[in-house]
Amino acid sequence: MKDDLPTVPGFSWAGMHAGIKDAGKLDLALLVADTAVPTAAVFTRNVVRAAPVDISETRVRAGKARAIIVNSGNANACTGDQGHVDALSMTRAVAEALDEDEELVLVASTGVIGRPMPIDVIEAAVPMLVSSLRFDAMPSFSQAILTTDQGPKVAETSFLVGRKRVRMAAIAKGAGMIHPNMATTLAFVASDAEIKPAALRKILKRATDVSFNAITVDGDTSTNDSLFAMASGAADAGPLDGDEKALAKFEKALTEVLTDVSTMIVADGEGAEHVVRIEVIGTDNDKAARAIAQTMATSNLVKTAFFGRDPNWGRLLAAAGRSGVAFDPSKVELRIGDAVLLRKGQPVGGEAEAQAAKVMALPEYTVRFKVGTGPGRAHYRTSDLGHNYVTLNADYHT
Amino acid sequence: MKDDLPTVPGFSWAGMHAGIKDAGKLDLALLVADTAVPTAAVFTRNVVRAAPVDISETRVRAGKARAIIVNSGNANACTGDQGHVDALSMTRAVAEALDEDEELVLVASTGVIGRPMPIDVIEAAVPMLVSSLRFDAMPSFSQAILTTDQGPKVAETSFLVGRKRVRMAAIAKGAGMIHPNMATTLAFVASDAEIKPAALRKILKRATDVSFNAITVDGDTSTNDSLFAMASGAADAGPLDGDEKALAKFEKALTEVLTDVSTMIVADGEGAEHVVRIEVIGTDNDKAARAIAQTMATSNLVKTAFFGRDPNWGRLLAAAGRSGVAFDPSKVELRIGDAVLLRKGQPVGGEAEAQAAKVMALPEYTVRFKVGTGPGRAHYRTSDLGHNYVTLNADYHT
Repeated sequence: MKDDLPTVPGFSWAGMHAGIKDAGKLDLALLVADTAVPTAAVFTRNVVRAAPVDISETRVRAGKARAIIVNSGNANACTGDQGHVDALSMTRAVAEALDEDEELVLVASTGVIGRPMPIDVIEAAVPMLVSSLRFDAMPSFSQAILTTDQGPKVAETSFLVGRKRVRMAAIAKGAGMIHPNMATTLAFVASDAEIKPAALRKILKRATDVSFNAITVDGDTSTNDSLFAMASGAADAGPLDGDEKALAKFEKALTEVLTDVSTMIVADGEGAEHVVRIEVIGTDNDKAARAIAQTMATSNLVKTAFFGRDPNWGRLLAAAGRSGVAFDPSKVELRIGDAVLLRKGQPVGGEAEAQAAKVMALPEYTVRFKVGTGPGRAHYRTSDLGHNYVTLNADYHT
Repeated sequence: MKDDLPTVPGFSWAGMHAGIKDAGKLDLALLVADTAVPTAAVFTRNVVRAAPVDISETRVRAGKARAIIVNSGNANACTGDQGHVDALSMTRAVAEALDEDEELVLVASTGVIGRPMPIDVIEAAVPMLVSSLRFDAMPSFSQAILTTDQGPKVAETSFLVGRKRVRMAAIAKGAGMIHPNMATTLAFVASDAEIKPAALRKILKRATDVSFNAITVDGDTSTNDSLFAMASGAADAGPLDGDEKALAKFEKALTEVLTDVSTMIVADGEGAEHVVRIEVIGTDNDKAARAIAQTMATSNLVKTAFFGRDPNWGRLLAAAGRSGVAFDPSKVELRIGDAVLLRKGQPVGGEAEAQAAKVMALPEYTVRFKVGTGPGRAHYRTSDLGHNYVTLNADYHT
């Protein structure tokens, strides 16, 4: 166990090539807790759901899990009854190798859809997968869950409870095709905090809303999206439950790692050159701000303007105007970085556009839209839409 | 008045270069009825609305109009109080030249937003515009209203009421950037039918719902979208009002010309190579079918698959699944042209994909998604998303 590799006490990891993808590419991953530990998860709301989603969602209701097996290269979606049988076989193979209750093994898949799972190669690989489990193999795990990603997405943090340090890591996959057309997003959080399933579930829901759901709104998800959080308690910092201050630290840490990996997903947007944070303030309530931010962030005209580094306030304003939120256009203010483009709904002119164009050359920047003087606020992260997006998505086959 | 140029009795047209666009390009247009005639219109629901929209919407409530002045090159949007003054000046200039009540003159603008109108050059041009009015100058009118369009969009039809032939023409502009990011769409319908404003308004609303609103849903519109219909009565076929059969013919004709020009807008989608009609059937009701068709039609992953001629049923199915409509994925059927790709929710395999790929090379084809056995149905026209879209929209400045 080297110091420079990320670890989370209480968890082991594995990643290997089983034979689902082409030779050499890692395609099978496993996360195992030392014992069954509190676990929570959120899943896609798409009515077309892959078999592993159904199985994991049912099992995680018990609040505890021991392991999660993940494969890339095949989503096991639109595979009918056989897909369900195959997903169960994956969890059974892991349960047998670990000598654990099958109900405590969860499963996630990502890749092409509508193709039968190569279940034989997976079952044959599981014993080796389990025997390769290591505390410091998180990098292999993070590599084996990828599909069109340019690289792995890992974020870590820690915080103190009393004198004890509590650790947390988030590992995610997913690239481009963010809302409204996201690719499968998978994310796994491991922490050595001690926290009960109910609190973990509640905090995970809130942290997801301001991170993953600010790039991929509820209900606008793919067939396989899944986000799991497990807490081993191995930090030995005592139970967080009942300690409001410690729970707040846990929530802050969870929000931080989920924001980090979800931002990496936007940045890895197929062919994306820019990550743009769209911030909307001054609406009557957060919901209205969110609707405006989402409409701006998902407009193809806005996203191509980001690609063209064009401070096109007209497209941003027109997107806001069709968001379904009523506002007075003569009162809005729009900034890109520090450049004020619109004041009282009208173009400021002068150097503002040149200044904004400079900001838009940066890999990351913020667009800020002030609607009025209300308390509502929300943000949304998006990427630009350029030629690479078209090339990748016109060529990537199911 | 030549026989081979389209005309509609009771109307004159004009189109000229006033100086809003670069030298030589037509940018000012005028449609004038011989007298004030029944007129109806529908407008953008964007809360950010250009000045001409406000003025025309208020005036058309009277049910009659004499003329519509249209300019391209400047949208007169986000131009504040001065924009309102300028739009009024345009109608006043026409009213004076025609010696007509100003309230009977409507106005529409399209082009860049946030720039002051070059009102002097417009006012200076109006007398010449009026003096160039001709029965057979519809082609000049149709040219002068264009912005990024590849060419004019005109559709004509006629029908018999008794022994009298009733004529109708629709002229439109608008290209690409269809829902959810449409460019300004303007459309003008002229008919020599005799019909009261109330019936005209009702029928126009219905015909718009199945044509323009099947490419650009209500509420998802630009700052300037406007659709006008005028009826001169010059066919001398007697009033349609009260004659259910004649009214049905009128509605059929109106639906036909609006469908034709709206399809031309999709086909002119910036850089589009394919127009795809997405048909959804078998839902509980039409609204559900429409929601599914719209989600499929506006998915970037679906649209890039159309560009790549990839029979990617997975993307179509996943889009349907996140439309907000509940359905049983194990019962759906999906066809591209005659090729059945999914049956009972699972891939058919065999020759189907190769057959579908052939269909997808065509400039126009149909995707048919059968959800269940309900009576609901809807269609939506969309275009593919290719490199030209990115190039045009990253480079086109406000």
